[in-house]
Amino acid sequence: MSLLVVGSIALDTVETPNDKAVEILGGSATFISSCARYFVQPVRLVGIVGSDFPQEHLDYLKNCRIDLEGLQIRNGEKTFRWGGKYDEHLSGRDTLFTELNAFETFDPVIPEPYRQSDYVCLGNIDPGLQLRVLDQIRGPKMVVGDTMNFWIKGKKDELLKTIKRLDVFILSDSEAQMLSGTKNLFAAGSKIIEMGPPTVVIKKGEHGALLMTKDAMFTAPAYPIEAVYDPTGAGDAFAGGFLGWIAKTRDHSFENLKRAVIYGNVMASFCIEKFSVDAIRNLDETDISERVKTIHELSKFEPV
Amino acid sequence: MSLLVVGSIALDTVETPNDKAVEILGGSATFISSCARYFVQPVRLVGIVGSDFPQEHLDYLKNCRIDLEGLQIRNGEKTFRWGGKYDEHLSGRDTLFTELNAFETFDPVIPEPYRQSDYVCLGNIDPGLQLRVLDQIRGPKMVVGDTMNFWIKGKKDELLKTIKRLDVFILSDSEAQMLSGTKNLFAAGSKIIEMGPPTVVIKKGEHGALLMTKDAMFTAPAYPIEAVYDPTGAGDAFAGGFLGWIAKTRDHSFENLKRAVIYGNVMASFCIEKFSVDAIRNLDETDISERVKTIHELSKFEPV
Repeated sequence: MSLLVVGSIALDTVETPNDKAVEILGGSATFISSCARYFVQPVRLVGIVGSDFPQEHLDYLKNCRIDLEGLQIRNGEKTFRWGGKYDEHLSGRDTLFTELNAFETFDPVIPEPYRQSDYVCLGNIDPGLQLRVLDQIRGPKMVVGDTMNFWIKGKKDELLKTIKRLDVFILSDSEAQMLSGTKNLFAAGSKIIEMGPPTVVIKKGEHGALLMTKDAMFTAPAYPIEAVYDPTGAGDAFAGGFLGWIAKTRDHSFENLKRAVIYGNVMASFCIEKFSVDAIRNLDETDISERVKTIHELSKFEPV
Repeated sequence: MSLLVVGSIALDTVETPNDKAVEILGGSATFISSCARYFVQPVRLVGIVGSDFPQEHLDYLKNCRIDLEGLQIRNGEKTFRWGGKYDEHLSGRDTLFTELNAFETFDPVIPEPYRQSDYVCLGNIDPGLQLRVLDQIRGPKMVVGDTMNFWIKGKKDELLKTIKRLDVFILSDSEAQMLSGTKNLFAAGSKIIEMGPPTVVIKKGEHGALLMTKDAMFTAPAYPIEAVYDPTGAGDAFAGGFLGWIAKTRDHSFENLKRAVIYGNVMASFCIEKFSVDAIRNLDETDISERVKTIHELSKFEPV
C-alpha cells in the first residue's frame, strides 16, 4: 500500500480576527500529507519549493516520515507565497496576495518508484497538472482529487476532463454549487456525479460533509469546534484523513467510505484549531479515535 | 395527553421561481397543528381569523381532527395576510406585504379546558403574547417555543423573558446567529442555553438540525429533497413533528428528543414539496416512518 500526494507547498501569511501569522507552512500537499501520515507511512509527496524554503519545515516533513524524493527544490527561486485575511466570522476570506514563484512553472514529474502508487491524492492545483500526474501513474487503486473555485471559473474544460478520471471528487459546498449551477447540495452532488466521478464528497464546514454515489448517500456531521482559530487547510486535512483511512484499510466499500469521511472530518477539526500544521503536528491514535467516537455519539439515534 | 398550539393563521401569497399561489392557507399554527395531528389527536388550536376565512380551510382543519374551540373568528374583520417572494435558490425571501388585520389585536385567550394542556407549542408570534399564553397554562409537561428575526430585533427584552420559560427553544440558524451574536452554530447554541432554555434546537434547512443541551448534542441530517417547491412553513412543520412525537411518546429522555428532531425533519421535508399544506394533507404512518428510516440509513456508520 502506497499513498502519493501531489499539490502545493506554500508559505502562508494569514490574518484572522484574533491573530496574524507571517510565512507559516501551508499548501495543499503539506496539509494532506501531514494528515495522511497518521494512517500510512511513508506518504510520498510531489511538490515544489524554492531554495528559501526553511530547513525547519523540511525537518518537520521528514520527521513525519513523509518521503520527499518527489520534492523539487528549485535553486535560486522563491517558494510559493499566499496571503489571506478572514472575515470576522472566519467564514469568508480575501486573498491579499499570491506570489507563485517556483510554483508557476511546476511540472509534476513523478519519480519512477512513485508511479506504482496504489492511492493518489491530487491536491488543489491546475487541473491540467492533475491530468499530467494521472498520465504518469500506472494502475492506481483509487484516485482522489480536490479543486477550487479558481479552476472552476478559469479552467472548466480541463477540470471536467480531470474529474472524469477521478474515483472520488472532493469539493466544498460553494465549489459544488458553482460547478453544478445549483444551490441545493443534494441536487448539486447528483449533477456532479453525472459529470463523471462515481463518488463525490461535498465538504460543508461546520455542517459536516455529504458523501454521494449514484445509489447511496451519507451525511456526516462535523466534529463540533466552537472556537475556530484558522480554517486554512481544513479541506486538505479532510482529504488527507479521508484517503489515509482508505489506504490504510484497503476497503473501498461504501460502509468504509463513510468511515473515511468521518476521519476526514476529524482531521479537519484538528487543523482549524491552530495556525498552519500546529494542531496536527503531534497527534496520537487516541486523539483521533476519541473524536471519531464523539462524532458517532452525536449522530447516532435509534428509530423505534 | 394533550397538545396545545398557539400561533398565526394566515392567507399567504407566495412567489417562487417556478410558481405563484395567491391566498393559500398558511400561518405558524396551521403548519404546526397540520403536522402534530399525525402524532396526537385532537390537537388544540388557539388562533384568530376574520370572517372572510374560507370555509374550505375550516373544513380542512376539522377533517384533521384539530380542535377549533380556541379559534377566534372575528366578525367583520379580515384574516391576516402575508405575501413573500423567494429568490432563485429558494433560500432567501423578501416579504412583499404584511396585512395583520384581525391578528393585530389578537389576544390569545386560552379556553378553560385547554389550560391543563400537557404539551404546549408556541408558534412564532409576539413574545409578549407567548408569555400571556404561558400565564394561563397550568403545569404543562413541556413547553416548546419558536420565534423569528423580527422579534429578536424588535422585542428582544420580552423574547429573553419568554425563552427563560421554555423547555425547548426552536429557532433557525440565522435567528440563532442573530440572537447570540455568534456565527458558529455550536457556540451560538451554547450561548442561547445560557439565556435560559435547557434545550435548544437550531434548524439548518438542508443541513438538518442541531439539538443541544448543556451536556449533550445531536446532529440530525435533513431528509434529502433535491427540488424544494416552497419552503414556507418548514420550520413550523418541524415544530409540529418534534413536539407531536414527544407528546405521543411522553418520553422526555435525550434519546427520545433525538427521535423527535428526526420526526421534525421528516415533517419539514414533506412540507416543502408543495405549496401550503398540500403535501402534508394526506400522509399515512408509512410515509412518515419510511423517511425516518431513510434518515437513519443515511446518517449511521460503524466506527471500527
